[in-house]
Amino acid sequence: MPRSGLDRFEQRKQTRARLIDAALKLFSTSGYEHATVDDISQEAGYSKGAYYFHFSTKDDILLELLRMWTESRGAALLAGGAEDEAPDLRAVLEGLFSYEADGQWPAVLLEFWSQSVRNAEVGKRVAQAYAGWRRQLAEAFSRAAAAGRISLASAEDAAAIALAAHDGYAVQVAIGSLRASEMSAAQLADSLIAPLEAPAEGGRTAAAM
Amino acid sequence: MPRSGLDRFEQRKQTRARLIDAALKLFSTSGYEHATVDDISQEAGYSKGAYYFHFSTKDDILLELLRMWTESRGAALLAGGAEDEAPDLRAVLEGLFSYEADGQWPAVLLEFWSQSVRNAEVGKRVAQAYAGWRRQLAEAFSRAAAAGRISLASAEDAAAIALAAHDGYAVQVAIGSLRASEMSAAQLADSLIAPLEAPAEGGRTAAAM
Repeated sequence: MPRSGLDRFEQRKQTRARLIDAALKLFSTSGYEHATVDDISQEAGYSKGAYYFHFSTKDDILLELLRMWTESRGAALLAGGAEDEAPDLRAVLEGLFSYEADGQWPAVLLEFWSQSVRNAEVGKRVAQAYAGWRRQLAEAFSRAAAAGRISLASAEDAAAIALAAHDGYAVQVAIGSLRASEMSAAQLADSLIAPLEAPAEGGRTAAAM
Repeated sequence: MPRSGLDRFEQRKQTRARLIDAALKLFSTSGYEHATVDDISQEAGYSKGAYYFHFSTKDDILLELLRMWTESRGAALLAGGAEDEAPDLRAVLEGLFSYEADGQWPAVLLEFWSQSVRNAEVGKRVAQAYAGWRRQLAEAFSRAAAAGRISLASAEDAAAIALAAHDGYAVQVAIGSLRASEMSAAQLADSLIAPLEAPAEGGRTAAAM
């Protein structure tokens, strides 16, 4: 592993990034319970000492992955325009559902969920993240409805369904039951939004077949 | 544990049922990886010998739970009228989504999914179950559309969304992010179906607010 030209700070950053990549890979394949700190260090090409320089426990790197995931979903919601005056809900949901460049994440979500049932810290952070996204999505649905883009009975229910669709889509992709070629994130978003579009506004009707 | 009055066959059935209940409880709390055959036997109040009389490995009882789950979902789809001439899709989906009497199941689904990523037999059976349900749901959506109950662009997409909603709802319930009091299985079913109902047919319009 050539390190010439990298100063100590850069080296440390790289080590940390490789450990995180290794954990992502092992948690998504062997699972969190099976993978050990030894496995993660070895997969990254480092000693256990390097691991413990950066993380204090195995939980610690799981929490870091959890932080990266919640940050990336939050960023995807914003990039999709979730906080726009009149949000394009297709773009918002497509952003939320997309893991195309990060093929290992859906399987890691299964680990977050399993651990959140039995690890209080993971559980707390996952619950906080979902509560935040649910609020943000409910507001986006509300604003889209106020702007006449969609019609709906309850923005809260629509937000809960969008989150359930996110989780369920990740499950189906992780277990290989639904390939992205069968239903892309964009198609899933469209299938959820199209029926909500008022005939007069969207140029599509709920009855279009 | 009084066994008088039970013949050997009944005793064996009871032992098996208790071992299965114990596994369901431990897999949903400690998780599949953590729970041992010793733990399961002890939780059920039996020796390891009793376990191995009924099951050959720890996998074996996971596969039995998987069989029970796939059978119960299949039964719920049928009871909801999935194969009726003109299915009531609310009843079909409510049946599919409901785990109210079986509070431990959603957390066990997390274990099925995690294991299906790394255990070929679990993966195969889970994939088969989903493929069957997706076909069955697509046919139910098609027949409901043909009977004029709903309008939709693609029965296959609608079926995929219904399954994703099932999985995502189970995740949200398992991790405690969505309580059944906030959104019941019936409400989730209604929120998915209502937007598909053609104004002329259902007496509800997609624009009802």
